Amino acid sequence: MQHVENYRGKMLRPTLVLACGLATDPSCLRASVPSCLSPAHITVAAVCEMIHMATLVHDDVLDEADIRRRGETVNRLYGNEAAVILGDYLIASAYHLCSQLESQTVALQVAHVSMTLCAGELLQLSHRNDLSLDEATYFELVERKTASLIALAARLGAQCSGADQAMCDRFERFGRKLGVAFQIQDDLLDLTGQRETLGKPSGKDLEKGKLTLPMIHHLANIAQGGRAKSLLLLEQACGGMQGGVNGDAKAAAALRNALDSSGSIAHAVRAAERLVEEAKSELGPVPESDAKSLLMSMAEAVVKRAF
Amino acid sequence: MQHVENYRGKMLRPTLVLACGLATDPSCLRASVPSCLSPAHITVAAVCEMIHMATLVHDDVLDEADIRRRGETVNRLYGNEAAVILGDYLIASAYHLCSQLESQTVALQVAHVSMTLCAGELLQLSHRNDLSLDEATYFELVERKTASLIALAARLGAQCSGADQAMCDRFERFGRKLGVAFQIQDDLLDLTGQRETLGKPSGKDLEKGKLTLPMIHHLANIAQGGRAKSLLLLEQACGGMQGGVNGDAKAAAALRNALDSSGSIAHAVRAAERLVEEAKSELGPVPESDAKSLLMSMAEAVVKRAF
Repeated sequence: MQHVENYRGKMLRPTLVLACGLATDPSCLRASVPSCLSPAHITVAAVCEMIHMATLVHDDVLDEADIRRRGETVNRLYGNEAAVILGDYLIASAYHLCSQLESQTVALQVAHVSMTLCAGELLQLSHRNDLSLDEATYFELVERKTASLIALAARLGAQCSGADQAMCDRFERFGRKLGVAFQIQDDLLDLTGQRETLGKPSGKDLEKGKLTLPMIHHLANIAQGGRAKSLLLLEQACGGMQGGVNGDAKAAAALRNALDSSGSIAHAVRAAERLVEEAKSELGPVPESDAKSLLMSMAEAVVKRAF
Repeated sequence: MQHVENYRGKMLRPTLVLACGLATDPSCLRASVPSCLSPAHITVAAVCEMIHMATLVHDDVLDEADIRRRGETVNRLYGNEAAVILGDYLIASAYHLCSQLESQTVALQVAHVSMTLCAGELLQLSHRNDLSLDEATYFELVERKTASLIALAARLGAQCSGADQAMCDRFERFGRKLGVAFQIQDDLLDLTGQRETLGKPSGKDLEKGKLTLPMIHHLANIAQGGRAKSLLLLEQACGGMQGGVNGDAKAAAALRNALDSSGSIAHAVRAAERLVEEAKSELGPVPESDAKSLLMSMAEAVVKRAF
C-alpha cells in the first residue's frame, strides 16, 4: 500500500469532488473554505481515488507495464499475483469506506460506476486489434472506462453539498465531458509524448493493438493507397497485430508522421478542445467563486497538459 | 458471465445463508419454508456466492489454472486480462446488489470480509515456498482467506432473520469452524484426490510452493534424516521451489507416501474432524428443525466429501 501511494498523480478525481462541492454550496461564496466541506466530501474524494488506483494497479497487470509515474509498478516489483490481490484489496477498502457514509446512495453509485468501468475495459478488450473500430464505439468505451468515474466524482461533490437534482446532473455532465477530453489527451500523449515528460513509456496503445481517436480518424478518411500503407505500418507497430509481441519503433514513428499529415492528430486535438469548451459552458449557470475558477482552469489544463 | 455460471459447485455459502436463516427463525419451526425467507436472505446469498466466484476467477489467474469444475477457466478461454476484469465486475456487482439492501450494515460487513479475504491471500503469497511456515500461521491464513466469508454467510443468514447478537455470534462461530475444516479438506484433496473426482488437477499446492497442514506437521515432527529426504522430495515436487516451473510428479507421489507414514495426513484429517464436531456443538442451543438437521449434515459432509 505504501508503494501505491507513489502513484499519486494529478489527483483529478478527489480534486473534482472537493472543488465541485465548494462550487455548489452558495454559502461558500461568503464563508471560509474549510467550513464548506463535510466529512462526506473527504470520504468520497478518497473513495474515488482508491477506485481509480485499483484500476491502475490492475491495468498495469493487464498491460504488463513496468513503469508508472517514474517508479516501478506493483506487478513489476511484487509479481502479478500480489498486484491482482492488492487491487482487490483497494476496491474492498473503497467500498468499506463508502459503506460508512450516512447516505447509502453513494455506495450504490460507486458500485454502479465500478461496474461501468469494468464493462468499458471489457469493451476495449473485445476491440483489441480491431481495425474497423469506429468513432462512436471509441467514444462509448472512453465514456465507460474513464469518464464515468470522473463524472461521478463531480456529481458526488455537488451531491454531498446538498445540491438539487438539476445541479447534480449539471456537474455530472461537466465531469463526463472533461473525462472524455482527458482520455483523448491521454491517448494523444501516448502517441506523441516523450517518455521523460510522461514518466512512463509512450507508444503502449499501438503495441497493445488499441486503436485511439487519431488512428480511427486516419483509417476512416485516408485514400485507398495511403490506407494500405498505413495498415502495413500499423501491423508492424503492433507487433504483427498479435498482441503481446513488442512493436516496431520505426514503424510507429512513420505512423505518427502519417497521422500528422492526414490531419488526424489535429482532429483529435480539436475534439478534446471542443469537449473542454462544452464542459466549461455547463458551469455557466453556477455562481462565480474561487472554486468555479479552479474548475475552469482544471478543464483547460486537461488538454494543455504534457503528462 | 454465462461461462462463470458453470463454476457453480457445492453452493456452500448461499446454502448456509438460507439454512442459517431458516434455523434461526422460531416461526419457521412451524410455518412453511418459503415464508420464512426474506428478499434480503436471497440477496445476501447471491452476494456471498458472487464474491466467492470473483475470488475463484482471480485465483485461477494467479494459479495459472486451466481447469475448474471440469471446464476450462476464464483465463484459459479468454485470457488473463478478461479474467481480471471479469472478477472486478463480479465484485462490483456484488457490492451494487448489497448496497440496495435496507440495512447498510450488510454492505459494511461484506466489504470488511472482502478486505480480510485479500489480506489472507497476501499472507499466503508472502509464505509461498516458506519451509518454516508453522501451524499457527497456516490457521490464521485459512481463517482469513476461506473461513471469513463462510462465517459471514452463516452470520448474515441469522442476522437477516432478526436473530439477536448472541445468536448471530453463534452462527458466525459455526461458519468459521466449518470454513477452516472445509479448507483443510480442500488441501487434503489437493494432496490425495483424483483428478477425475475433483474435476481439476491435484497436486497444485505443492507445485505452487504452498505448504498445507499435512506438510507443515510432517516437517515439524519428522526426525532429522527423514526431514532432509522429505525436503529434497518437496523441492523436486515444487519445481525446485522456484514457483512457476511444473513440479516432478514422481517426487510428489513419494512425498504423499512419506506424509502418510509419518501420520501427517491422519493429523490433518483429525484436525478437520475436530473442527466439524466443534462447529456442530455450536448449534446445540439452536432449536431442532429441518434446517438445523440440514446444517448438521452439511457440516459432516465437509470432511466426508471427495471433491
